[in-house]
Amino acid sequence: VQIALDAMGSDNSPNPEVEGAILAIKDKVCSKILLVGEEALLRKELAKYYYDKSKIEIIPASEVITMEDSPTKMVKRKKDSSMVKAITLHKEGKALGVVSAGNTGAMMTSSLFILVRPGIATTFPTMKNPQIILDVGANVECTTANLLQYAKLGSLYSTYFFKNPKPKIALLNIGEESSKGNMMYKKAFQELAQDKGINFIGNIEGKQLLNGDVDVVVCDGFVGNVMLKTVEGVAVSIFKMMKEQIKKDWVAKIGALLSFPVYSYLKKKMDHTEYGGALLVGLNGISIVAHGSSNANAIKNAIRVAAKIADSEFIQKTKEYFEKGI
Amino acid sequence: VQIALDAMGSDNSPNPEVEGAILAIKDKVCSKILLVGEEALLRKELAKYYYDKSKIEIIPASEVITMEDSPTKMVKRKKDSSMVKAITLHKEGKALGVVSAGNTGAMMTSSLFILVRPGIATTFPTMKNPQIILDVGANVECTTANLLQYAKLGSLYSTYFFKNPKPKIALLNIGEESSKGNMMYKKAFQELAQDKGINFIGNIEGKQLLNGDVDVVVCDGFVGNVMLKTVEGVAVSIFKMMKEQIKKDWVAKIGALLSFPVYSYLKKKMDHTEYGGALLVGLNGISIVAHGSSNANAIKNAIRVAAKIADSEFIQKTKEYFEKGI
Repeated sequence: VQIALDAMGSDNSPNPEVEGAILAIKDKVCSKILLVGEEALLRKELAKYYYDKSKIEIIPASEVITMEDSPTKMVKRKKDSSMVKAITLHKEGKALGVVSAGNTGAMMTSSLFILVRPGIATTFPTMKNPQIILDVGANVECTTANLLQYAKLGSLYSTYFFKNPKPKIALLNIGEESSKGNMMYKKAFQELAQDKGINFIGNIEGKQLLNGDVDVVVCDGFVGNVMLKTVEGVAVSIFKMMKEQIKKDWVAKIGALLSFPVYSYLKKKMDHTEYGGALLVGLNGISIVAHGSSNANAIKNAIRVAAKIADSEFIQKTKEYFEKGI
Repeated sequence: VQIALDAMGSDNSPNPEVEGAILAIKDKVCSKILLVGEEALLRKELAKYYYDKSKIEIIPASEVITMEDSPTKMVKRKKDSSMVKAITLHKEGKALGVVSAGNTGAMMTSSLFILVRPGIATTFPTMKNPQIILDVGANVECTTANLLQYAKLGSLYSTYFFKNPKPKIALLNIGEESSKGNMMYKKAFQELAQDKGINFIGNIEGKQLLNGDVDVVVCDGFVGNVMLKTVEGVAVSIFKMMKEQIKKDWVAKIGALLSFPVYSYLKKKMDHTEYGGALLVGLNGISIVAHGSSNANAIKNAIRVAAKIADSEFIQKTKEYFEKGI
C-alpha cells in the first residue's frame, strides 16, 4: 500500500511529517510513502535519518496551503501546493490514500472524488473499545438526511475497519427517549429505528460517551465539534488542576510519584496522537486529516489508518451504498 | 426572604428537600421556607429534626408531577400538585422565589410569569471563577434572537448575582474566528459585536471552557445540554478509570492514599451540588431547577441561590430589558 503524505500541513511542518514517515516505514504500516512538499527542505530533513531509501519518495511541491487560506479559493489557486498535489496523486491512483495535518476545509474542498458532502469521522478513546464519532465538524448546516448518511457510513467504517460484524449505532441527543431533541434529531431517530440495515440502539447522552457501550455515535458537525473539543478541554483541565493541587502539598507529591504509572497510562489512553487522524467519509477515496499540532507519532498513526482502510473494503462499500443504496 | 420549595420533586423526595430546608434555615440562607407537598409525609420527616419551627411552614399539596408526566398536560391537570402550588405561592407574592428538583419541562410550563421563552442558566466550575452557561436545554429549536437574549440575560445574571461590573460574554462555537459556525451563530456573532450594552469578547471553543477566562458562555439549548452532560461524563469517567488503574497496583494505591486531599478537593470543585440548581431566565420571577438526583446539600444551595437572586436587582433588570429594551 502506497500512501501520499502532505509534508507541509502541520503547525511544525515538515518535522513531524518527515519523522512520522520514517516511523511508519520502520513499523511497516505501509509499503511506500510519497512525501509531498518543498524538495530541498524535505531532502535536508530526511538526511537526518537512516532508513530504506526505496520506501520514501519526495514529490516536489512549491506552494503551501495555510490555516488562514480560504479553502475554496486556495485549492483552485495553489495548484502546486503540497496538499493539492498529494490528493492528485491519490486521484490518479498513484497513492491509495492521502494524509494531511493541514487546513481541514481545504482537504474537503480538494477532495474532488467526493460522493456526497463529506463528514469527519474521528476515533475516540473510551473505557472499553475505541468509538467512532461523526460528524465532528465538516457539516455545520446539517439535515436529517445527513445524519442518516453518517449512521450508515459510521456503520461501514466500524464494520470494515474495526471488524465489528454488527456495530451498535447511537444518536447523540439530550435524552434517551425518542421524543427528545430538536426536529432534525427526532426525525433521524424515527428513520434510523426503521432502518433494517443499521443496528440502531437509540439515543445516547454526553455523560455516557466515554463508557464505550456503543461503536458509533452520530451527530451534526456543530454539536460534534463542540463536544469533541469539550472532552479534550475537560481532560486537560482536570489533569492541570490535579497538578496544581499536588504541587501545594509535599505528601500529595510523594503520592503522585507513587501513582505515576496510573497517570501515564491515562494520559496515553486520552492522547489523540495514539488514534491517528480523522477520516473524511462520503468520499470515493481515503483522506485522513491529522491534528494541526500532530507530532511524528500522530502522523505515523494517521498513515497506519490510511493504509489499513486502503486494505479494507470500506471505500468499495461506501460507493455501493451511494450508487445502489445498499 | 421567603422561598417556596417543592418538596416532592427529587428522585428521593421528600428526604433531600426536607433536610435541605433544615440546612438552609440553619445556615440562614433565607428567612423562611414554604415546604410544599404531602402534609402527613412532610410532618413525619420534619419531626426527625430539631429546628426553629417558625421558619418552615408546610403548605399541603395532594398531587405530584413526575418525570414521566407531559409538562403541558399535567401542569393544567394537576392543580393540586406540589410544583404548581409552589409556583402559585411565588406568583401571589407569598414567596420571593421557588425551587424544585422535579420535571424541568413542567417547571417551564407552569412558570406563567414568563416574559419570553425561558432559557436555563447553569453555573459551572472552572479553573478560576464559576462561569454561567446558558441555554443548557430549555430551547432546542433556537434562533439568533434567542442567542442575543441569552447573552443579555447572562450578562445581567453575572452582574447582579456574581457582582461582575462588566462580565465577559462569549459565544460557544467551533472556532474563534467570526466566520466560524453555522448561520445562526455567525449572525449572533455579528449582532453581539455591535451591541454596546454587552461586553462581548468573541467565540470560545469547548476546550477553553474550564479555563474560566469568560463570565458567561452563550449557546443554544441542544448544544448546551449535550456539552454540559459531556463535561459531567468525562469528569466521572476519568476518575473511574483512575480508580480502576489504582486498584491494580499496590504502590499506586499507597500513592493515591497520600494524594487523597487532592482528589477530594477536585471532587468537591467538580461537584454540581455545590453550585445550587439552574436558574430559569426570561421570567418575571425566580424559578430554580435542581438536579433530580439532588441531595440535601444541593437543595440547600438551590435555596441559597433563589434567596440571593431575590435580594438582587436581577428580576427588575430582566423586566426592564424586555419592556424597554435596556
